[in-house]
Amino acid sequence: MSTYSRRQFIRDAAVTGAAISAINTPLKVLAAEKKQVVRLGMIGVGLRGQSHLDQMLKRTDVEIVAMADPDKGMIAMAQKLVAQYNKKAPLEFTNGPHDYQNLLKIDGMDAVLIASPWEWHIEQAFAAVNAGKMAGVEVCGAIKLQDCWDIVQAVEKTKVPVMMMENVCYRRDVMAVLNMVQQGLFGELLHLQGGYEHDLREVLFNDGTPQGGPGVEFGDKGFSEAKWRTNHYVNRNGELYPTHGLGPVATMIDLNRGNRLTTLSSVSTKSLGLHRFIVNNPKGGPNHPNAKVKFKEGDIVTTQMQTTNGETIVLTHDTSSPRPYNLGFRVQGTNGLWIDNHAGGFSEGLIYFEDKSLKKHEWENTKAYMEQYDHPLWKRFEKDAEGAGHGGMDFFVDNAFIECIKRDAAFPLDVYDLATWYSITPLSEKSIAEGGTLQHIPDFTNGKWQTRKPVFGRSSEY
Amino acid sequence: MSTYSRRQFIRDAAVTGAAISAINTPLKVLAAEKKQVVRLGMIGVGLRGQSHLDQMLKRTDVEIVAMADPDKGMIAMAQKLVAQYNKKAPLEFTNGPHDYQNLLKIDGMDAVLIASPWEWHIEQAFAAVNAGKMAGVEVCGAIKLQDCWDIVQAVEKTKVPVMMMENVCYRRDVMAVLNMVQQGLFGELLHLQGGYEHDLREVLFNDGTPQGGPGVEFGDKGFSEAKWRTNHYVNRNGELYPTHGLGPVATMIDLNRGNRLTTLSSVSTKSLGLHRFIVNNPKGGPNHPNAKVKFKEGDIVTTQMQTTNGETIVLTHDTSSPRPYNLGFRVQGTNGLWIDNHAGGFSEGLIYFEDKSLKKHEWENTKAYMEQYDHPLWKRFEKDAEGAGHGGMDFFVDNAFIECIKRDAAFPLDVYDLATWYSITPLSEKSIAEGGTLQHIPDFTNGKWQTRKPVFGRSSEY
Repeated sequence: MSTYSRRQFIRDAAVTGAAISAINTPLKVLAAEKKQVVRLGMIGVGLRGQSHLDQMLKRTDVEIVAMADPDKGMIAMAQKLVAQYNKKAPLEFTNGPHDYQNLLKIDGMDAVLIASPWEWHIEQAFAAVNAGKMAGVEVCGAIKLQDCWDIVQAVEKTKVPVMMMENVCYRRDVMAVLNMVQQGLFGELLHLQGGYEHDLREVLFNDGTPQGGPGVEFGDKGFSEAKWRTNHYVNRNGELYPTHGLGPVATMIDLNRGNRLTTLSSVSTKSLGLHRFIVNNPKGGPNHPNAKVKFKEGDIVTTQMQTTNGETIVLTHDTSSPRPYNLGFRVQGTNGLWIDNHAGGFSEGLIYFEDKSLKKHEWENTKAYMEQYDHPLWKRFEKDAEGAGHGGMDFFVDNAFIECIKRDAAFPLDVYDLATWYSITPLSEKSIAEGGTLQHIPDFTNGKWQTRKPVFGRSSEY
Repeated sequence: MSTYSRRQFIRDAAVTGAAISAINTPLKVLAAEKKQVVRLGMIGVGLRGQSHLDQMLKRTDVEIVAMADPDKGMIAMAQKLVAQYNKKAPLEFTNGPHDYQNLLKIDGMDAVLIASPWEWHIEQAFAAVNAGKMAGVEVCGAIKLQDCWDIVQAVEKTKVPVMMMENVCYRRDVMAVLNMVQQGLFGELLHLQGGYEHDLREVLFNDGTPQGGPGVEFGDKGFSEAKWRTNHYVNRNGELYPTHGLGPVATMIDLNRGNRLTTLSSVSTKSLGLHRFIVNNPKGGPNHPNAKVKFKEGDIVTTQMQTTNGETIVLTHDTSSPRPYNLGFRVQGTNGLWIDNHAGGFSEGLIYFEDKSLKKHEWENTKAYMEQYDHPLWKRFEKDAEGAGHGGMDFFVDNAFIECIKRDAAFPLDVYDLATWYSITPLSEKSIAEGGTLQHIPDFTNGKWQTRKPVFGRSSEY
């Protein structure tokens, strides 16, 4: 069905090595475009999906052929966006949550971009690759560990690849730090931290109107993410959103490419924040029905992990309390460290290098380093990224997805990254349910991590 | 032997409650001094012991009656210090490492201050209380878990108390934050972090001369701490120095006084920093004998803990790598949070309170809060603390030790705190040795934590 079923996705180490070298050679030699236009379907066109749609509509090399979403209001918003770009209206698949399966039958469609509620990601990606459509899959954690195995095995069997759409891997300061890591400024890496420390209370609750005004409604009565995301907080206790914190540091220590996560253990605080938000809200109060809801998700979940190469990683999930936004990055090696307690601005972090910092034992502001080591990709596409979501980083993740498809090139964040990062969620839930026990993280590559070569951030092409 | 063997140290909850109220009533009513001068022995007068000695010599209510240290050079330095204050030369006990036992036989000596190498702390405190002498015990972690039980049982049996001499509990910003916690600014506490993130490479190694010049020597060839501390890094892998990070947050969540630590798990990075320091040092190099030493201690050790009241704590031990000094505090509750990545200056932290901060979701500088909530103890003793070690905090810990003895009052940081905090070290070693497994932290109070009342920082008396 797809022209991509012939694709040799699972390469051996030697071939992968060659491909990497290729990326650094002039564009036309080896990485030529095999396809001028990517025919794309959107699965999930809520607010996040519309943000991707907006990126894709700006491009001349993408044709949006279809959209699936059971929420007709969202579909209407998405069509309006398409019309603003004077592009052809995509086909609509709105007949319930399973209508995406009909979208997947469209002949000649190359790929889908999945930005649905979390619980649908793996099912839809699985169906996509089995239908011969590549899939770009938005971030979250898996519902069940088996889901991670299912998607890996589906990709291995069909040879149709998926891309893990982790935008924070492309955050400008994160890529500058990655550049510093790759140039050896930190020495040998030792310890990394990341997380999702973001007060989501006004995302998890609203008044249920299409304006998403202030309120304490969620589930059927909520709007947008409050419709489905909040239910995860009712029913689960774990590291629900691991990839924004883990993805960026994973690329720095070459996880699944010469290195591997081995164990995790997670602990959770009590759960107070969401209940308090409802009770103290002018639209809520102690007598509001939602004041009776028991939220299982602890307000702060901490996860510590180990790798085969001897690094440790700490992840923090902190979304139910008042706090400034921060992904809490720390990257530390034998020669120095970087920490970020803000939102990624070039001059907002602290950094120290033994052989570069002017004063011994004193932090420096990050600005000069960030500018000096600004990643070639950002330098090249700075103008294109302007106005794209989340400070421009969304441009890069969408661009990589499309450019890889055009070139028949391996995605820089692939199904093994997706499975590994997604697996943190169910494993952390199990650890917490067992009081904080140690959990072994599966090797989804089945040993291939030992010979797979790093690719992310190694090119200025896309 | 001691006048303190009659002391009713283990109080029941009601009496403790009364004692707390007493602290807040005028000085002379209930907290009258029963003793005008404390007769003190020093066990360990290395550089740390001399710092305490200096504090004690400034006081008119302390008489230093004796000093024990097998290092005659250190004893000579200590005597010189005594002479500078024109005070009577204390008796010397320098006949090997066990001569402190003879010091403990001195009649009429009230207490000892123990600032010896880590491996001696519990043995010496145990001997002290059994000799009827109260003991102030410097910070470190236990060598064996059983040591923690031994000192608890010795104190319970003899009724002779010990004080945990954790100076960082008295750091000015830490006490201001404690004040904010007690006044409810943070809401209900959820998550706390602390640690010891301090590049100790030039402490762990020197040239072995009494000047402690640059070098790569340790053990018998090292000077001061390098003589003994570094060997712990050769032979152990764990959270070697938990109390500077744990103590301050322990007082904020009332550990052992209505709350209790339940579990920990620890992970460690590879060990690279100390070897690299030796190899890259102009006085070392790849052919120096110490370049062959294998250091077991991982460069960064992370420990996550849980409490009965549903808080989580993360500790970081990070002393083998180049980095700015930082104890890495984070105190977070339902209403806001504080973080510190510097060394405790009033204007160096970041803070946010939902109902106080001017801009939603934006950090504020700590300065105004620190000044407004400066702890009454600091306001009262600011002048006295000037010039005392570690930015003044050493004054407070020594002052509390002496003032409690004078009043026959319970120490604010007691044997249960000491045993609990010290126990983190052997438990973390066991966790790491087992790959990061969950360890249960004993209840050294044997249930008394449920009724013991908080005392630390509740008074402006001492």
